[in-house]
Amino acid sequence: MVDTIERHSTQRLIASDRVEGTNVYNGENDKLGSIRNIMIDKKSGKAEYAVLEFGGLFGLGSDHYPIPWEMLTYDTDKNGYVVNLTKEQVERAPHYAADSAPEYDDIFGRGVYSHYGIAYPLLR
Amino acid sequence: MVDTIERHSTQRLIASDRVEGTNVYNGENDKLGSIRNIMIDKKSGKAEYAVLEFGGLFGLGSDHYPIPWEMLTYDTDKNGYVVNLTKEQVERAPHYAADSAPEYDDIFGRGVYSHYGIAYPLLR
Repeated sequence: MVDTIERHSTQRLIASDRVEGTNVYNGENDKLGSIRNIMIDKKSGKAEYAVLEFGGLFGLGSDHYPIPWEMLTYDTDKNGYVVNLTKEQVERAPHYAADSAPEYDDIFGRGVYSHYGIAYPLLR
Repeated sequence: MVDTIERHSTQRLIASDRVEGTNVYNGENDKLGSIRNIMIDKKSGKAEYAVLEFGGLFGLGSDHYPIPWEMLTYDTDKNGYVVNLTKEQVERAPHYAADSAPEYDDIFGRGVYSHYGIAYPLLR
């Protein structure tokens, strides 16, 4: 299995269950958390958000922070994703408790994109 | 958690870990298997394949069959995905053992798409 996973990571495509659980760092090399899952448009298949588990202790009490997919870069040295965000920026970002996911509707989406200063995609 | 999962399923977006493990049926209501994971383009975020676990007994010895994402429709009554394929069509489709995933390169991709009679997407 290790071989499979390693090979996946060097290709154009990556398996969703390989992304889930991957660590997320920022440019200062702080570990922000790990990826809980990916929010995908059912019809187009477009991954719109990677959901970051952040805060809490050992996964307890951590909240979920949707981050627009295009903000993440994979860093092979770190074996994780890198986003250009300070911990403080994440703390102020839209988030929810693990057991109370909101509707990912346009209002919620616009809030997330505008927090990160990215244009909300109009074409779906 | 049930509430979260249920709500996810009625929205435009779906969580990757909700797709994983979902049953796949065909038009004749045969259960073909379940979705192992989703293969996603790292850069664009486009989900290109749902990987179907098919064959074997209780997950043992089952092989992995990549199916172009656009071939799957979610059926709320069945609580699963539906593809327009007979069991025999799946049996003859490109697949691999769980522990020997191939490179998902263009040659592999063209083979899958051509097996299913779908034009291979040129724009990435």
